[in-house]
Amino acid sequence: MNKRAPKRLVYMDHAATTPIDGRVAELIHHTQETVFGNPTAMYQLGREAASVLFDARSALADSLKVLPQEIIFTGSGTESVNLAILGAARANRDQGRHIIISAIEHKAVFAAIRVLESEGFTTTIVPVQHDGTIEIDSVISALQDDTILVSIMYANNEIGTVQPINQLTKAIKTHTRNKPPLFHTDACQAVGLLPVYPKELGVDLLSLNGSKIYGPKGSGALWMRNDVSMHPLIVGGDQEYGLRAGTENVAFSLGLAEAVFRAVENQQTEYGRLLKLQSYFFRSLSAIHPQLQINGSLTSRLPNNVHVTLPHLEGESLVLLLDSYGVAAATGSACSALDLTPSHVLQAIGMEDDIIHGSVRFSMGRSTTSTDIDYTVNAFAKAIDHLQRITTPECIPHKTRRHLRL
Amino acid sequence: MNKRAPKRLVYMDHAATTPIDGRVAELIHHTQETVFGNPTAMYQLGREAASVLFDARSALADSLKVLPQEIIFTGSGTESVNLAILGAARANRDQGRHIIISAIEHKAVFAAIRVLESEGFTTTIVPVQHDGTIEIDSVISALQDDTILVSIMYANNEIGTVQPINQLTKAIKTHTRNKPPLFHTDACQAVGLLPVYPKELGVDLLSLNGSKIYGPKGSGALWMRNDVSMHPLIVGGDQEYGLRAGTENVAFSLGLAEAVFRAVENQQTEYGRLLKLQSYFFRSLSAIHPQLQINGSLTSRLPNNVHVTLPHLEGESLVLLLDSYGVAAATGSACSALDLTPSHVLQAIGMEDDIIHGSVRFSMGRSTTSTDIDYTVNAFAKAIDHLQRITTPECIPHKTRRHLRL
Repeated sequence: MNKRAPKRLVYMDHAATTPIDGRVAELIHHTQETVFGNPTAMYQLGREAASVLFDARSALADSLKVLPQEIIFTGSGTESVNLAILGAARANRDQGRHIIISAIEHKAVFAAIRVLESEGFTTTIVPVQHDGTIEIDSVISALQDDTILVSIMYANNEIGTVQPINQLTKAIKTHTRNKPPLFHTDACQAVGLLPVYPKELGVDLLSLNGSKIYGPKGSGALWMRNDVSMHPLIVGGDQEYGLRAGTENVAFSLGLAEAVFRAVENQQTEYGRLLKLQSYFFRSLSAIHPQLQINGSLTSRLPNNVHVTLPHLEGESLVLLLDSYGVAAATGSACSALDLTPSHVLQAIGMEDDIIHGSVRFSMGRSTTSTDIDYTVNAFAKAIDHLQRITTPECIPHKTRRHLRL
Repeated sequence: MNKRAPKRLVYMDHAATTPIDGRVAELIHHTQETVFGNPTAMYQLGREAASVLFDARSALADSLKVLPQEIIFTGSGTESVNLAILGAARANRDQGRHIIISAIEHKAVFAAIRVLESEGFTTTIVPVQHDGTIEIDSVISALQDDTILVSIMYANNEIGTVQPINQLTKAIKTHTRNKPPLFHTDACQAVGLLPVYPKELGVDLLSLNGSKIYGPKGSGALWMRNDVSMHPLIVGGDQEYGLRAGTENVAFSLGLAEAVFRAVENQQTEYGRLLKLQSYFFRSLSAIHPQLQINGSLTSRLPNNVHVTLPHLEGESLVLLLDSYGVAAATGSACSALDLTPSHVLQAIGMEDDIIHGSVRFSMGRSTTSTDIDYTVNAFAKAIDHLQRITTPECIPHKTRRHLRL
């Protein structure tokens, strides 16, 4: 890589956040400049704002094949997940205080569970297999008479493993018959990559995040089946059906609805396109180092996720070197980058702490091309070489040298 | 008012929400299109986003004369108030479980207090005088050994009464000496109209709202003195110093900082300009109906607030008629427009339920001119006349007729 050449920038961290879709940004800008009434006000300007907000709610509902009144707009995916778990558990505490989650949920789920435990709830954390998938029987055997909520993510943010949500919800309903617990799925990583239709998944609550789907950062939504009891997290007003107080962010609601529409519209095409790129990515990576290990499932996986480990190397150093070559990639999940403790997801799939640190996540997006992958793989090979020369210069495998063409 | 003439639109509800400042909207748009990295990511794009976020935090801190690390960005004024009250009370529950609030706080405060009461806290609600001001002695005599938090708003959203925050915090500190309770003030209505400098006010926590100060809807901030203990409301990530999990809304943080800067920069000029208009507004209104009653303080009041009652008339009907004449005004507070129960603020200042309903709030803003006031007062006179003719045709006062020149 010639330092004087204009540096290329390859963004390989779409699971952390995506750039905003230009059409979404324009829509937000236009809405902010033209719709300014408070949607709860009685006069024309307020009713107009309320009408735009309802249009956003309806559009988002249409994309998910649900009802408008089942959509609660929030300020992030994390807030959606918090509202789903804290709100549903608190509102249904008279029915029971036991909750089931998987071992690879997002930190937003674990942190919410810790809050609930301080309020007298108990939790069973269901393990996952080595590829990150959950066995249906593990969930079924964790069910108790007082289980009121199960929260299992649709697709994992770190290793990309996709869970069999529809089979899980069916099995739980069969097993519990007259009183199944509520089922929440964190679908923040799935929208635009997998089909996300709550009714088809058989869930009761589903969380979305605008910042992962080319929508605005600071937007999210919770879908909740219309007969689910729920407590608000933010109180003091009747907005969002009394479940999220505060003047509504009309522009972002419309922007989020547009982002979801675009994501759902292109989901199938994008799935196929990314799946081919992912396969090419894995093949290219496997060629650069004999010890490179692919994490997660090869069959039940998000099409944009490429998560690998190089034992005895430092993921942080690899990411910083990649950055210096113009490739943006992640170590662990974006939410834990401020915190360098070993990833709980990688621990849950059975990786030892000393090799967990050698992990790097690449996540592709709409703009990713095979040229980007070539560039990334070459940069990765160079980073590995550089790091190995610093630590154990004699150990650079021949294959790695072959790829140093940056 | 000729129905065929192009309808004029006079917005007299700036206390509910303001239009966004064009410069703020542009800044948000530009930021959304150019800064897209996740601020917690390690690579250049992430660090750039983190740097923009820190610039926003520093700018907002400068406007308030406080430290950047004392600013927590939130999604609304309501969320800021919730975080201040729920977060500070929960984090300091070992020091005591008694809280003092005024009788005219925003619903966000009352709702948060109700949540705390379900967790074992107790509350003293300090009454206000007929003009809405709080007597310092009432607060002092409400203090208990286990009082950990006092929350009194800077300026009321309905009747505009401004509280003597600085004198209150001084008196409390004098009275409690070594262990004063935390003092939170809801300054959502005050920014841009009054000087809002937390250190000069002597408070520990102060809430802001972007949607009231020509900033984006869906933005807010909490200032908290850097030694205040606080629990987060939204959990599962280390963002905002661990006090608000979720990918940061970089664009809105910058937009909010810009809105606060503009508001603070023009505060003194705007105060003087609005004070003159307010005086003219009151004089003009007083002339149209002998029974018209001005609510709130005439001396300690926001310069943009005009709150009046016409006994035996329906505020909702007046507001709808005003709307039909092109004037946007409010009955009660914007946050309670979905809920037509009598305003707790008007009850607290001693108004009877049967006349409370005849209340209308006009709130002026940056664009308001004396011509807007003339138009509004004429429209109001016409609305009163119309409503009185429907109910008791014989009672239209002569003065009202005089003003029917719309």
